[in-house]
Amino acid sequence: MTDVACSQVEVDGQRLLRWLRELAQIGARDDGACSRLALTDEDRDGRDYVVNLMQKLKLEVTIDPIGNVFGRRAGMKPSLAPVMTGSHIDTVRTGGWYDGNLGVLGGLEIVAALNDAGLQTQRDLVVAVFTNEEGVRFTPDMMGSLVYAGGLDLDIALNSRATDGAVLGQELKRIGYAGQAAMRQFEPYAFIELHIEQGPVLDQRQIKIGAVQNLQGISWQQIQINGQSNHAGTTPMAMRRDAGYCASAISTFVRNLAREMGGDQVGTVGQINLVPNLINVIAARASLSVDLRNTDEDLLRMAERRLHDYLQELAQTEHVEITTEQLVRFEPVQFDASLVQLIEAQARLQNLSVCRMTSGAGHDAQMLARICPSAMIFVPSVGGISHNPAEHTEAEDLIAGCNVLFGALTTLANRLD
Amino acid sequence: MTDVACSQVEVDGQRLLRWLRELAQIGARDDGACSRLALTDEDRDGRDYVVNLMQKLKLEVTIDPIGNVFGRRAGMKPSLAPVMTGSHIDTVRTGGWYDGNLGVLGGLEIVAALNDAGLQTQRDLVVAVFTNEEGVRFTPDMMGSLVYAGGLDLDIALNSRATDGAVLGQELKRIGYAGQAAMRQFEPYAFIELHIEQGPVLDQRQIKIGAVQNLQGISWQQIQINGQSNHAGTTPMAMRRDAGYCASAISTFVRNLAREMGGDQVGTVGQINLVPNLINVIAARASLSVDLRNTDEDLLRMAERRLHDYLQELAQTEHVEITTEQLVRFEPVQFDASLVQLIEAQARLQNLSVCRMTSGAGHDAQMLARICPSAMIFVPSVGGISHNPAEHTEAEDLIAGCNVLFGALTTLANRLD
Repeated sequence: MTDVACSQVEVDGQRLLRWLRELAQIGARDDGACSRLALTDEDRDGRDYVVNLMQKLKLEVTIDPIGNVFGRRAGMKPSLAPVMTGSHIDTVRTGGWYDGNLGVLGGLEIVAALNDAGLQTQRDLVVAVFTNEEGVRFTPDMMGSLVYAGGLDLDIALNSRATDGAVLGQELKRIGYAGQAAMRQFEPYAFIELHIEQGPVLDQRQIKIGAVQNLQGISWQQIQINGQSNHAGTTPMAMRRDAGYCASAISTFVRNLAREMGGDQVGTVGQINLVPNLINVIAARASLSVDLRNTDEDLLRMAERRLHDYLQELAQTEHVEITTEQLVRFEPVQFDASLVQLIEAQARLQNLSVCRMTSGAGHDAQMLARICPSAMIFVPSVGGISHNPAEHTEAEDLIAGCNVLFGALTTLANRLD
Repeated sequence: MTDVACSQVEVDGQRLLRWLRELAQIGARDDGACSRLALTDEDRDGRDYVVNLMQKLKLEVTIDPIGNVFGRRAGMKPSLAPVMTGSHIDTVRTGGWYDGNLGVLGGLEIVAALNDAGLQTQRDLVVAVFTNEEGVRFTPDMMGSLVYAGGLDLDIALNSRATDGAVLGQELKRIGYAGQAAMRQFEPYAFIELHIEQGPVLDQRQIKIGAVQNLQGISWQQIQINGQSNHAGTTPMAMRRDAGYCASAISTFVRNLAREMGGDQVGTVGQINLVPNLINVIAARASLSVDLRNTDEDLLRMAERRLHDYLQELAQTEHVEITTEQLVRFEPVQFDASLVQLIEAQARLQNLSVCRMTSGAGHDAQMLARICPSAMIFVPSVGGISHNPAEHTEAEDLIAGCNVLFGALTTLANRLD
């Protein structure tokens, strides 16, 4: 097969949309949300659906010990490293139709289109489904790809305990996805993940394709403040040890810090809980989350340091105890420049508007980037909404993204160097 | 009886402490808290205890239609207006031993001491127990005294619906406290309420007696913010409509406003709720309470106006909708200057340290102040803690407060002018 032959093939958009609809029925809720938490019965049913599809497409299906599922389409040169694509099919509790699913089913659609056209690539093509990307039921998130890339010990992952008490390894066995394949059975030549943006940039700029060149580093902290509960009327302002005020002061500090640093820096306090949380009682305790992200590790560290200094100062001036716990810490990821160029070129070839951009969310591709050249293709999220039943991407954009993935993957799969 | 005779009487401190302990057993919880929400079975049992005590003390017991209980001790001149004292015995869900109870049982101890000494005052003495002071189960708080003072229509109060769905009038009947006595059967010559401070001022200043000269005006608002839920990583700072940030900004504004205004102004945000309240999601909605208090109505209005202006500005700059609801609004209350002087004089006579002070909490006395000269006596709250199982006042301070009340009440009850 030649690149020329491939360049004449288009994916079957209607088939892709049908698969997305069918998978969305599994775990569907009354409010339109899709709920397939990792390694639940719904996740099993979703996996069964995908495996069945892989088998119909004549892929060689293997499952590894962390439950990652792989469908391999043989190329003409089996000695060459395979090209890999894929994503995840687990969802958050109130998930949409596309987050993750598009990357998996888009990969399978490319296989189907190649099957239909009777074309064989030089290198093997592998479509991967990674376990527990969302990290809602088991932590950490992006677990399957992290274990695959060697960043997390398999045994630790298998012993991870769910919010509902279940143990991950036992849940894998229970749903029939504790696989026997060797861990990291493929050493990919390259990895490209197709995903919805989950942010507003493409939608607001009216651009069809995002060539994702890097991914923000993420720092999540939980902050606990211990003050003194007291009567809101009788306690003079100067005598207060108000944990609620301190939580609010930290929240406004985080916002002002991000604004002041500018560039890629973002900062969010999305969670605040006061105790006792009553109108006329000064809060005794408060907990809040801080989410800091930057594409530059030095700047992200600076933001963390400035927050740390502020907390120390605040504890002193407000006579409260402040403790912090680091929940998540990922360094920023740079994707492979030549892959980003390839994605841009494919989009232009297909007359699609394209821009280079940063991913603000974590994705399996960032784990694969540890072991092979990796990049991502984003398609617009209407209103920037995701993790929500209202998550939506226009059908033509889903199909356009899949065609760009097709072009990029087949180009790579036909490279012999 | 003469003032000289009365000045030689002291209350029986041990009896007062025993009664406080006995009443605290009714509604006692495992954590040491006392829980007698208004018009529950526990409240009924507490009322039964007090009525039984009144009968043993040979008081004439009457109950009015809002459930206020009165115990009258006849004076020598029944045509003169009676002197009244009292408070409440309902508690918050996690109440202490003294809030309210001290004022009721302290009043009864004065009756007992007069009985023991065989002394009769010129004027009648009335000990009142007002219904639903706390306002936890039924709103508004200070209901019984407010209805007594004519500030709330009896029918509206009887139709008040509890947080658990019950109707107040029916609950009064159910527990046997829907009385037949005429509403406002007594027009008091004066009213003095003995109460724990529920704040830290006396404790921190090591002063035994507070002569309460005024009571803060209270403004409670509930603020609702509607923003836009979005991904914390992918949404640039400038594109956010972050309801959580706005809640925090309002909370810090309230604190800074109170600090800047100084004087008696206090401001508290004790309650913040974010939706969806997740680490990596910009809050779509937030609600928070604002509690503003000042002893000066003009200044309290200024604080409200400045908050109002800030909310308008914030809604515009942050592209959010902000709505407010006034939950409670009481103007500041000035107590009777000559009663405050009398309390001070009585404390000095008994060699007790005393200071004039402001009440930051609402009390039944503020309602009685609408219809007769009124004032309050405060005793120290250790650590300023109340509405809490840890609420504590030293035994000697409880007794000292009761002796000051004795002196002030008997002085008033012997006045013929």
